Parts: sequence; C-alpha cells; structure tokens
Amino acid sequence: MASKSALQNPDSTTFRGRQDRLRIRFSALPTQAVLITHLPDIRYLCGFSGSSGILLITETSSTLFTDSRYTIQTKDEVGASTVNIIKKSLLNEVGALIARQRSIHRIAFTPDQITFARFRQIQRVPKRPIKWIPASTLVSDLRAIKDPTELAAMRAAAILSSKVFEKLLPKIRPGVSELDLAAELDYLSRRAGASGPAFDTIISSGPRAALPHAHPSPKRIAKNELVVIDQGAILRGYCSDITRTVFVGKAPPRIRRWYNAVLQSQLAAIEALAAGVEANVVDAAARRTLKRAGLAGAFTHSTGHGLGLEVHEAPRLGRGEKSRLALGNVVTIEPGIYKQGVGGIRIEDDVFIGAHGTEILSTAPKQFLEL
Amino acid sequence: MASKSALQNPDSTTFRGRQDRLRIRFSALPTQAVLITHLPDIRYLCGFSGSSGILLITETSSTLFTDSRYTIQTKDEVGASTVNIIKKSLLNEVGALIARQRSIHRIAFTPDQITFARFRQIQRVPKRPIKWIPASTLVSDLRAIKDPTELAAMRAAAILSSKVFEKLLPKIRPGVSELDLAAELDYLSRRAGASGPAFDTIISSGPRAALPHAHPSPKRIAKNELVVIDQGAILRGYCSDITRTVFVGKAPPRIRRWYNAVLQSQLAAIEALAAGVEANVVDAAARRTLKRAGLAGAFTHSTGHGLGLEVHEAPRLGRGEKSRLALGNVVTIEPGIYKQGVGGIRIEDDVFIGAHGTEILSTAPKQFLEL
Repeated sequence: MASKSALQNPDSTTFRGRQDRLRIRFSALPTQAVLITHLPDIRYLCGFSGSSGILLITETSSTLFTDSRYTIQTKDEVGASTVNIIKKSLLNEVGALIARQRSIHRIAFTPDQITFARFRQIQRVPKRPIKWIPASTLVSDLRAIKDPTELAAMRAAAILSSKVFEKLLPKIRPGVSELDLAAELDYLSRRAGASGPAFDTIISSGPRAALPHAHPSPKRIAKNELVVIDQGAILRGYCSDITRTVFVGKAPPRIRRWYNAVLQSQLAAIEALAAGVEANVVDAAARRTLKRAGLAGAFTHSTGHGLGLEVHEAPRLGRGEKSRLALGNVVTIEPGIYKQGVGGIRIEDDVFIGAHGTEILSTAPKQFLEL
Repeated sequence: MASKSALQNPDSTTFRGRQDRLRIRFSALPTQAVLITHLPDIRYLCGFSGSSGILLITETSSTLFTDSRYTIQTKDEVGASTVNIIKKSLLNEVGALIARQRSIHRIAFTPDQITFARFRQIQRVPKRPIKWIPASTLVSDLRAIKDPTELAAMRAAAILSSKVFEKLLPKIRPGVSELDLAAELDYLSRRAGASGPAFDTIISSGPRAALPHAHPSPKRIAKNELVVIDQGAILRGYCSDITRTVFVGKAPPRIRRWYNAVLQSQLAAIEALAAGVEANVVDAAARRTLKRAGLAGAFTHSTGHGLGLEVHEAPRLGRGEKSRLALGNVVTIEPGIYKQGVGGIRIEDDVFIGAHGTEILSTAPKQFLEL
C-alpha cells in the first residue's frame, strides 16, 4: 500500500469524527481507553499508512507510536493524533504511557489483532492492576460503515479494476499462460493508477478453474476452456475485488446454462441486499437460485464479504451469519460453481448499500463472453 | 505466493529431515510437541503453501490441519505429514487432538506467531493441564540454515531480480514516474518467472530517496537525481531482495564520493561475513567504513537481515546483535545513506555463507551508473 499525500487523505476532522465514534463505543463497555494494534484500524482512525505502529486512544487523547523511519511520513498523514517517534520498543513505550495515565483502569483491545507475545509485553509494563477487555469488533464495526470519502475511493478502485478487465480481454487467447495474463493484468492495473494489487491475482483456466483459490500457473490457456479472472486494486488505500469468467471459443449449451445460473444467483443476492437484512439471507438467496438449477452442491464457499481498507473485512455474507447489514456497507457478491475436471464459473461485484438503494461499484460487463 | 507443483517442491525426505531436526530441538526444552502457527514455518516443515493451516508435530507424528479449499493442493504438496481437512474451527480440532494425546503434557509454541485470541482458543479445549512453552526461535533458527534445495531456489531468485534490474535500466530516464517504473519492474519480474514480488517494490528518486522506505509515487524522475531501486522476487517460494542506486545525468563529485563510500562499506561488511562471527561485527564493519567517510550519521538503519521463505528472517545484522552467523545463512548486506533534501544511496546484495566462503547470489552490476 503506498503512502498517501495529505491531499489524498481525509482531513483531520474526518479522523476526529471516527475517533469520537470509537470513544462512544468503548466508553459503553465501559473502558477508559482502547489499544489499536491492527494497521488498517490505525490507518482508519488516524491516517497513518506505515507498516509499524500502535495507536492508543483514551477519552481525551489519541497517541500514535511509531519509529524514526516514519518521522516525515507521519507529518503528512497524521492530523488528529499526537505522534510519538520511538527509538526502542514501541510496546514498552505504550505500556509506560498506560502506566502514567492513572485514571485508566480498563482498556479495550482487539485480541485477534495482537500476538500473544506482544500482548504479554505491553501487559507487563504497568505495575498496577489494569483490566484488559477483549473487543474484537470494536473498530471493525465502525469500519464496515463507509463514509463519503471512503465510498469515493472504493468507487474509483472498482471502476479501475473493471476497465483493467476490459483491457485484458483481447489478451485472453489460446497459448498465453495464466502467469503471463496475471503479469499483464497487474501491469495494466498499476499503469491505471493502482498502488498495487488488493490480493494475489487469480487467473485459472480449464480444469484448474475448479480450484476456487488457484494461483496463476505456467499452464497455457487452451481453446474451449473457461477462464476465471479474480482481481482487485488498491487505490488511495481502498480495495476493489472483482471476478469475471469468460469462455475461450464457442461454449457448449451446458456451460451457457451454468453461466446463466451463476449470473441469476448473483443478481438474486444483489437484489436481497438491504440495510437491516440478516447477512445469511443474502447468502441464502444466492444458494436458492443455484439449487433450482441443480447446482447447489457445486457452490462451495460463501456469497461475499465486506471490503474496504482490507480485502476481507466485516460483514461476512455466509450461512448462519446473523449480523444485520447496514447503510454504508460495501460488500462483494460472488457466488461460484466448481466442477472437478471441467472448470469453474464465478461472477463477483462490489456493492454499496446506500440510503437510496444499492449501487454496484464495479462496471465490467457481466454477459457471457465467448472470446 | 504461488502454490508449487510436487515436482518443484523438496521431496518428503527433506521434510522428514527438517521435522526430525525440530524434534531434537523441542525434546531438549523439554516438550513432547510443538504447535506451528506461522505459515512460512509450516511450509518449511511440511511443504504446504496455502494461506490457512496449523501444524502439530509430536515425537512420533506430524499433522497438518487445514480446510477444504486445500484438499487437492495438499495432495500435491504435503508428503511427510498427515493431512486433516477440517470443516469447522481449525483451532478446536487442534485442541481436540492435543486433548486425546494423553502423553503430551508440555507443548512448545511460537508466541509471536499466534494471536492472543487464537492461542486462548486452543488452550481452552483440552480439559487437562498442559504446560505451554514459548519458544520464539525454535523454527526460525532451523530455517536460518539453508539446505541445497533452498540455496538453489534463492540463487535463481537473486539472479532473476538482478537481470530484471538490468532490463529496467534503459527505462530509467527523465519524465517517467516512480509508479510507472515500479509497474514496469514488477511486470518484468513476473514475465521472468517470479510468482510475485517479495515485497512492495521501492522506487524513490531525488529528495524522496532520502526516505529509506518510500513507496513509489507519481513523482517523475528528473535529470540530476539519484534513483534507488529496491526490489525482490519470489521464486519457488523463496525471496530475493536487491537494491541498486543510479544517477540520472552526470553526477557531481560529492555524489560520486558518497556512492563510493557506500560501496566500500558494503564490501567491508561482505568481507566480514563468516560462520562463527557475531552479527554485530558485520554491522560494525559497514558503519566503520562510512564513519571514515564522515557519513556515519547518514546511515540510519541496520546492515542486513536473513532472507529465505520470508523477506525478513533470522539472523539480523544490526548493532548489538550478539547471535553468531552460521554456515548456511543467507543474508542481505545493505548499508545506505540518506541526506534530507538531496536523496539517498543504498546498495544491497544477497549473500550465502558457505563452507568454502561466501557466495554473492545477486549478480547485478555495482559500479556507479550514470544514465
């Protein structure tokens, strides 16, 4: 992820607002502070995009601890927090600040975003009783609700990746390898302004497309094969995540029928998206449509996931997910079917749940393409 | 990181050997098992290159826990371990296996490679007393000693990146942006066979080169600027990490003097590399040479780090590092100087410490290049 200039970053008012919303949440736990150790959470709350840092937010302050590599970068990026450049151990300095702030007795932390060793080290420093409150979703729940700056970045990222897919189309032909196509796609994406891929680009063809997470291989595209292209870009820190499936040659009726079933399934899931709906309802809509086509067993993963500063974040759209979708969520909708020995078909868009309905951020064509 | 076919992977004898060396180490702690939660450690010990898994190695068994996405991949990759495909929570299943193996009372784990939440979850399952022994360096110390298969992959990765640098040279000219050069470099690397970049490529020019970890920006290269190119490739799972610095135009004497000082510093550090030497001695050799040139204060980071399945691993070559280098280590040697407002110069090679002396794996030219 590239560091961003102050101009591209939200202004300090935005970060103050986010921090204040977090304060409301942690004071209800109740705690007097929250320790933020996950880098995307830190970026969300104070703008810092470096690769090492810890943020401590109390009722009245916000302090970023990082090291001297980031002295200049923090001046550009961090507006609403005190920056503490640390020469030795960040963890010890964070612990020392906690030790000194004697009004702090209870601190929230994200137990799935700190290693056992790091947590123990911070815990050891203050020589007075502190109650540590695990709060996994404290920041992720906030991050799931995108504000207008975030939506603008995500829309731009989704459009970028959609155009990249269209530019890649003429290069998908028999003889070219999956690895070459992936290299080409990543290059197009960077040239279009992405600071990098949001995840390792997936290009899988023929029988390999039956592996939902296949990495590109030296295998060459052959005639009469399905090709799955699953890719995303990072733009201004935010991710896109888009899948399209094409056929090289003239597809047999069975493949056309499958493609259509996946597309109907995807449209049904998008149709089901709305604020207040339980996440599993959206997943069920996708599954029901595939079941009607006799393809329920071939859909082996969940329907989608939240998207933002990270390529997988809250909410999840899978079986049994009881959490309710909310205004401001951006999620992927990506049903797929996988037939061992034959291949796979997946169609994925990025969708925003807005006050006036849903907005599909990705613009690449979804009709069945025979190349 | 791309998944590798069985042909490219070391054979099961290699993995058995590595597991047996690990058993000797953990039985000395003493413990009866070790829980491996760090993916590169898992790949090293059993070949699995997926993105989710836990490996439990006992005195007599080796069991990989992963999910159904990897059913086919594990058949290709994992030879010397039992594979356990889990539908629900990996952590609970690992805990359940531990609970059943009643001869296990003490288990080693790597506390800086497991989150607090995951550790707690595993710990909770066995309803009998287990003593958990933190052992941060149990696997990393093994991984620091490269075997011939590993060395071959690393040599190939270093040569690949060296050639990519040479191919990039004609494209470094006034007017081209850092981002464009980074896209070009990554593309060349992928086309040359890399499964991906070992880290986000750094291209920094002019005053931006004074930031040791600058990400490529839209800034265009201008005449009379230093350009730092720090890049690496992943090949067969192994990383390269190479930096070269060039000048666009005819360099003033001051820049030539600085370049020469950095080069002398780098050569002095390479000269100091040998099995049995304390890591800090190598760092001191680099620093001493720069001090003689009046540039000690401009060298703001450490001299190098181990390299392998990860781009940063044991050993570290910095001030105060007391650990001794060993036969089989592969390390980077990368002194650099940074002058605010002017730019930076860094020269980095990957070096293997062998029985017959050191071997510089990276082959890109190191003489001062004025483009």
